[in-house]
Amino acid sequence: MELEFLGTGAGSPAKTRNVTGIALKLLEEINEIWLFDVGEGTQHQILRTTIRPRKIRRIFITHLHGDHIFGLPGFLSSRSFQGAQKNEPLTIYGPKGLQDFVQASLRVSQTKLSYRINFVVLNSEETIFEDDHFRVVTKYLDHRIECFGFRVEEKDYPGELMVDKLRAEHVPAGPLYGQLKAGQTVTLADGRIIRGQDYLGAPKKGRTIAILGDTRQTANIALLAQNADVLVHESTFAKNEEQLAHNYYHSTCVQAAKVAKKAKVKKLILTHISARYVGKKANMLQKDAQKVFKNTKLANDFDVFKVPFSKR
Amino acid sequence: MELEFLGTGAGSPAKTRNVTGIALKLLEEINEIWLFDVGEGTQHQILRTTIRPRKIRRIFITHLHGDHIFGLPGFLSSRSFQGAQKNEPLTIYGPKGLQDFVQASLRVSQTKLSYRINFVVLNSEETIFEDDHFRVVTKYLDHRIECFGFRVEEKDYPGELMVDKLRAEHVPAGPLYGQLKAGQTVTLADGRIIRGQDYLGAPKKGRTIAILGDTRQTANIALLAQNADVLVHESTFAKNEEQLAHNYYHSTCVQAAKVAKKAKVKKLILTHISARYVGKKANMLQKDAQKVFKNTKLANDFDVFKVPFSKR
Ligand SMILES: [Zn+2]
Ligand SMILES: [Zn+2]
Repeated sequence: MELEFLGTGAGSPAKTRNVTGIALKLLEEINEIWLFDVGEGTQHQILRTTIRPRKIRRIFITHLHGDHIFGLPGFLSSRSFQGAQKNEPLTIYGPKGLQDFVQASLRVSQTKLSYRINFVVLNSEETIFEDDHFRVVTKYLDHRIECFGFRVEEKDYPGELMVDKLRAEHVPAGPLYGQLKAGQTVTLADGRIIRGQDYLGAPKKGRTIAILGDTRQTANIALLAQNADVLVHESTFAKNEEQLAHNYYHSTCVQAAKVAKKAKVKKLILTHISARYVGKKANMLQKDAQKVFKNTKLANDFDVFKVPFSKR
Repeated sequence: MELEFLGTGAGSPAKTRNVTGIALKLLEEINEIWLFDVGEGTQHQILRTTIRPRKIRRIFITHLHGDHIFGLPGFLSSRSFQGAQKNEPLTIYGPKGLQDFVQASLRVSQTKLSYRINFVVLNSEETIFEDDHFRVVTKYLDHRIECFGFRVEEKDYPGELMVDKLRAEHVPAGPLYGQLKAGQTVTLADGRIIRGQDYLGAPKKGRTIAILGDTRQTANIALLAQNADVLVHESTFAKNEEQLAHNYYHSTCVQAAKVAKKAKVKKLILTHISARYVGKKANMLQKDAQKVFKNTKLANDFDVFKVPFSKR
């Protein structure tokens, strides 16, 4: 599980920061990549990474401002052009209106995709995706336009089967081991009763990542981020600009740090950095946040953050 | 008058070629820049040039394929964000459907522009723009989708007034010189009759540029390009791929060279280069074209071509 930042800027592309695009790489876990927001030029950024577009199977859109969606039609077209197959569909989660934009773009340009798109409209706070490995929950944020945050929860991994211990006790190998690994109780041919639970290591706790759209401070942020391994939070304004941030429906670096602390996350990543903050000034955003929440990093384009399992 | 190539690729962005975007810089002539096609990432390319978006006052779209229009919503938004004023409107010329795409994009993203857009729908072969300095004429090309080529004609410059000659003949300076420069005949206080025509140098011939969208070979190409100073022609396929080019509604480098020769243009610029042609292979496209039409250049991103006045 890795986060790769394709665009860390705000509003318009700048020379060193593209507009928003974040890849959540789940290649080891489920051999998929998920994208969060697709600003213009996201496909250009992807060209400079190892990401293969056909591996991207889910796209989550936080809100419909241009700097978060204008790269979508081009990305979808190129994913088709680059050989995504019929059996590699894409699911796109986003606010009402997104489908209109995508379909108008594809219709006007007479683009026929090689794969199917499933659109899921976000319109309440709920679990929008769940399978054996992951659950994704959304909550509303507070932006000028309808805007969502996403909490991605990896499910716990069952403990490892203690094969050495079983062998030492002469439990014969075979399909039986699968039953024990699933935690079942099994009766052996010699009459012994073996409880799988006694032969399983501790389950490994799944990781949680919260990725937010543009937002003012609002109670839902802490709910989305509670105990997360990583919180990705916007940082459009500097420490002393709370009033500006409020007026423009954004947050300051220190507000992000405060909510990271409150929600007891393990790591805070700041993104959506305005072109007003370059070099030392961008560094200041990180430093000011670190004074409140130590494990803060300001993301730059192409930064990759591995998300480790937490130690018990 | 300069042509600056912002994107010289075909279909999808590649590492060294963005999708189509061409700037016609008329800063010395009318203090404006015109854009021809706006593929995704055109605004990113502009960031790497000296072009100021507010100077761009007209946009011409050859056809609605995604690699020619998906950068439009982002460019329009950023032009507004970067301070284009109410009195700096933009006129966009393009096929039917373009306005739908732009308006859907702006509506869904709730983008309010600081300036007005005038849409002009291209739906016949005609003069679509004319003022004291320039005329723009369109003709249909032959692509899978409705597609246009543009012929931009600069009007002739009147000859310079021979001030030295007038002074030598003791014609008194003053508003009179303006009348003479306009070619009028004037009676002096001493009774002499002076004909402006006798005191004007030769008029300077205006320049002509033909910029085409994607196309198969068709009779209109030579009509658009006739005697042009520069012809910008697509070159999606190589010398020996005429059949492929035909099947995909495109042209080969040699087809472009042949029509350049036939139309007696002064210079041919090849663009819309497929990602299949890199390095030496791209060079071959240019070399093969040069064998037919010597003054051929294959454009690369950020190439600038000055368009000189032709010598009489
Ligand atoms: Zn934004
Ligand atoms: Zn094209």
